[in-house]
Amino acid sequence: MEQTGQKTTRRQLLSTIGVLGGTALLYNMMTTLGYAAETQFAGPPNLSGAKKGASVIVLGAGLAGMLAAYELTKAGYKVQILEYQGRAGGRNWSLYGGDTYTELGGATQKVGFAPGNYMNPGPWRIPHHHRTLLHYCKSFGVALEPFIQFNHNAYVHNVGAFGGKPQRFKALAADFEGNVAELLGKALDQKSLDAEVTAEDRDRLKEALREWGMLDKDMRYAKNLRSSEHRGFDRPPGGGVNGAPTPSDVFALHDVLDSGIWRNMAFFMNSEFQTTMFQPVGGMGMIGKAFAAKVQPLITYNAKVTKIDQGKKGVTVTYADTGTGAVTEAKADWCVCTIPLTVLSQIESNLSDGLQAAIAAVPYSNSVKIGLEMSRRFWEEDASIYGGHSFTNQEISLISYPNNNFFKDGPAVLLGAFASGMGGYHLAGMTPEQRIEAALAQGSVFHPESYRKEFLNGASVAWNRVPWMLGCCARWTEETREAHYQTLVAMDDRVVLAGEHASYVGCWMEGALLSSIDAITRLHKRALEA
Amino acid sequence: MEQTGQKTTRRQLLSTIGVLGGTALLYNMMTTLGYAAETQFAGPPNLSGAKKGASVIVLGAGLAGMLAAYELTKAGYKVQILEYQGRAGGRNWSLYGGDTYTELGGATQKVGFAPGNYMNPGPWRIPHHHRTLLHYCKSFGVALEPFIQFNHNAYVHNVGAFGGKPQRFKALAADFEGNVAELLGKALDQKSLDAEVTAEDRDRLKEALREWGMLDKDMRYAKNLRSSEHRGFDRPPGGGVNGAPTPSDVFALHDVLDSGIWRNMAFFMNSEFQTTMFQPVGGMGMIGKAFAAKVQPLITYNAKVTKIDQGKKGVTVTYADTGTGAVTEAKADWCVCTIPLTVLSQIESNLSDGLQAAIAAVPYSNSVKIGLEMSRRFWEEDASIYGGHSFTNQEISLISYPNNNFFKDGPAVLLGAFASGMGGYHLAGMTPEQRIEAALAQGSVFHPESYRKEFLNGASVAWNRVPWMLGCCARWTEETREAHYQTLVAMDDRVVLAGEHASYVGCWMEGALLSSIDAITRLHKRALEA
Repeated sequence: MEQTGQKTTRRQLLSTIGVLGGTALLYNMMTTLGYAAETQFAGPPNLSGAKKGASVIVLGAGLAGMLAAYELTKAGYKVQILEYQGRAGGRNWSLYGGDTYTELGGATQKVGFAPGNYMNPGPWRIPHHHRTLLHYCKSFGVALEPFIQFNHNAYVHNVGAFGGKPQRFKALAADFEGNVAELLGKALDQKSLDAEVTAEDRDRLKEALREWGMLDKDMRYAKNLRSSEHRGFDRPPGGGVNGAPTPSDVFALHDVLDSGIWRNMAFFMNSEFQTTMFQPVGGMGMIGKAFAAKVQPLITYNAKVTKIDQGKKGVTVTYADTGTGAVTEAKADWCVCTIPLTVLSQIESNLSDGLQAAIAAVPYSNSVKIGLEMSRRFWEEDASIYGGHSFTNQEISLISYPNNNFFKDGPAVLLGAFASGMGGYHLAGMTPEQRIEAALAQGSVFHPESYRKEFLNGASVAWNRVPWMLGCCARWTEETREAHYQTLVAMDDRVVLAGEHASYVGCWMEGALLSSIDAITRLHKRALEA
Repeated sequence: MEQTGQKTTRRQLLSTIGVLGGTALLYNMMTTLGYAAETQFAGPPNLSGAKKGASVIVLGAGLAGMLAAYELTKAGYKVQILEYQGRAGGRNWSLYGGDTYTELGGATQKVGFAPGNYMNPGPWRIPHHHRTLLHYCKSFGVALEPFIQFNHNAYVHNVGAFGGKPQRFKALAADFEGNVAELLGKALDQKSLDAEVTAEDRDRLKEALREWGMLDKDMRYAKNLRSSEHRGFDRPPGGGVNGAPTPSDVFALHDVLDSGIWRNMAFFMNSEFQTTMFQPVGGMGMIGKAFAAKVQPLITYNAKVTKIDQGKKGVTVTYADTGTGAVTEAKADWCVCTIPLTVLSQIESNLSDGLQAAIAAVPYSNSVKIGLEMSRRFWEEDASIYGGHSFTNQEISLISYPNNNFFKDGPAVLLGAFASGMGGYHLAGMTPEQRIEAALAQGSVFHPESYRKEFLNGASVAWNRVPWMLGCCARWTEETREAHYQTLVAMDDRVVLAGEHASYVGCWMEGALLSSIDAITRLHKRALEA
């Protein structure tokens, strides 16, 4: 397997192919060469040969818009960004102590977190295969640290299971696996599956089930030190005279089924949530700030777009200054529009009927996040939970423990709710104070002695009340994809849409960036042809 | 669930109980109060009331010995530590660039790692429930960072599976779960398990299997976007026009069984390897250094113990300076001996026959670790693997990716082998150069394009060639526990043994510390009675 004498490295080869043949060819070459198909990202876009003086107006200074502006500027285009807010980053956003946020309906929250603490109202974790985002984080100097997603020792709570008492993930998962292994072992013994499994594989599968499910020598899942190795001990192993461990009781299948634990087990196996995940040091908003630092001079802030008008010679965007009300017309040859569809559908334009129908068709989710600052890390100190989530079927859906500053004394912020669906609508309908109270009431189930006692202050963001979003992110259905997706992403004369809503990686920053790269690559091609 | 009006916190209550009633009562109270039985650690030992002038000699400046010295000194005892090496820490040890290490047989390695890089020949990860170690890390100011143990995206390799081609853990695990779910679903349909599962639970279990195993609506595990969500896509979701994902092929049950994947799945559910795990920033040796900083003046280095003699009035330990050969007798009222049993069995003593038999009876494991410095993080850049391990049934057993400095340019050290059993003996019998070659040859299976090409230098430690250990750590069997454990840990007149070998948390630092706390607590009780 030695590669000595190989003059061209695979990396150099791929780079060459990328320049010569573009993204699609590069992708094919990557998979042919044996790269795992982890991503559609094949490096920054190749936009060489831009016409002198060609101009692009970018609507929205979120990640998609700023990436488009950054790469188009590098390629020689003249770029302007219009941003509704007084800050760049869009949903890439962290709230720190001292920040103020006013939601639709007028409620204003002043965040009271201690210095260094934060909550991320929008994105909060980065999969290891989101290579576009990771590439630009590295290029732009954003430091990342691990985000603990999967935590065996956190809790799973279901109001209909175990009398409402949360159980550790490890105990429920171990008992689910143990029961499944024992039952399948019995079925194999009864030869009811002989049509499905060869005799050789049957014996091997039985041995696999015994080892995986921690069954005893008689293929039973039972209370013993073996099952306790997975589910936890009654008395764990120790040192010296009383060091011997004692086993814990196992739960009955019926109770394990009540818990719904398989949903959590499947969730952790979902490609978006597999290890290793990351978060920026200091809050997710560090990414938006790093992007903004690259395109700062191009951004016009507090610019509310009121009209998009494209003609034979270019695009005219009308916008009003949200402070002064002054109206301005901006003109460019092309337009990359990253405005969320919820807002874009309300803006006057002469986009094609098909595109307008697509813009109106995509439903948005309605997440609510609530940050709770606690006076100490009782989840670490008292419950040995370091990062990760405890899940519940109450409206808050989960609580999530901070992944930075493990073991630190002093206040820490945990995520007290990540609600969506009916729970999200219910919480969004409350005042910020009521939301905190709901989060404390529901989250107390996990840490009853400490949750209210250690609570200091909180903040919440209900995404359908965020003035510049009116929702959280695009939730395409199979039907809307079929009817509208290709129309939504196609260039509409001189305008192309970009953002997570224009991708199959919806609700993730990676989708916004991949969409942006695809959009500007096609825009560039069109511009060269024009 | 609100706790307002509760004047005494649970923490304060437990602290009071600890002082009044000792460890055993505290442990019982903890579990009664609903604390998860995560640990036998109930806080530092309470050694109040030590007699003025009472003295203890501690043999070995590993963690067990240094903790004993630290706590006994705090309690008022006069303590001396004798240490064979020129450094403290014992197996808690990191090798850095510039370090020199000579093994039994005379081979000397000079470590060539770049500044900041290291390997941990001994312990390298800390479970979240090792509360004793975590307590002292915090007390002594040792900064910890997450250690990625479970990585869905790392490889599993078996020379007898898939023609020797490694597969991603996620793909094999997903296919194992999918096959198990489909087969058990069929068995439930055939009613062969009706004696085991009620009709209500049968339907609920089927739905659980469908969701957990990513089965389709017909309860089949098949190639589709649903199974690809767990096992990985052929073409992953992307942005824009070509954003739609395509599914990957699933492996046949027969091939999945070849891989032995269930062992890895069970391994990650083992309580010692459950998330969240930690490592010290800068290398595991930072812990030994922090302990040493607390007891530095008590340590006599380069002291080879040659005789342990206990009498009615005290203990006399004879030792030779390993540099000058000068022989000294040290005397104290009591002795805490943390010398590994492999070495202790060769030291002259008048310990009881029972204890000497116990010391001779405990087998030690024989691990070999090999560190390989690579010129760049190709596992991150090319294979999207950030921390965790890739497993193989070759002698190296696994390769493990560094959990610090993710995304950093420049050289990084990965663990190229963690061998034991026959593989360990085989590698230990080689020269250091031969070990590196074996590690490169075997590890190349995971990263064939890069492994040799990016290799810079390496170092290895074969524990049965470590002069001060002659083995890795104690591997009690059920039989040796039954015959010798209580004798080994019991006070032998004025001498008590401590270390991971005197615990049920063998081969872990936590076992050494828990053993030490138990030993000095009993020594203190005996000293008060004397």
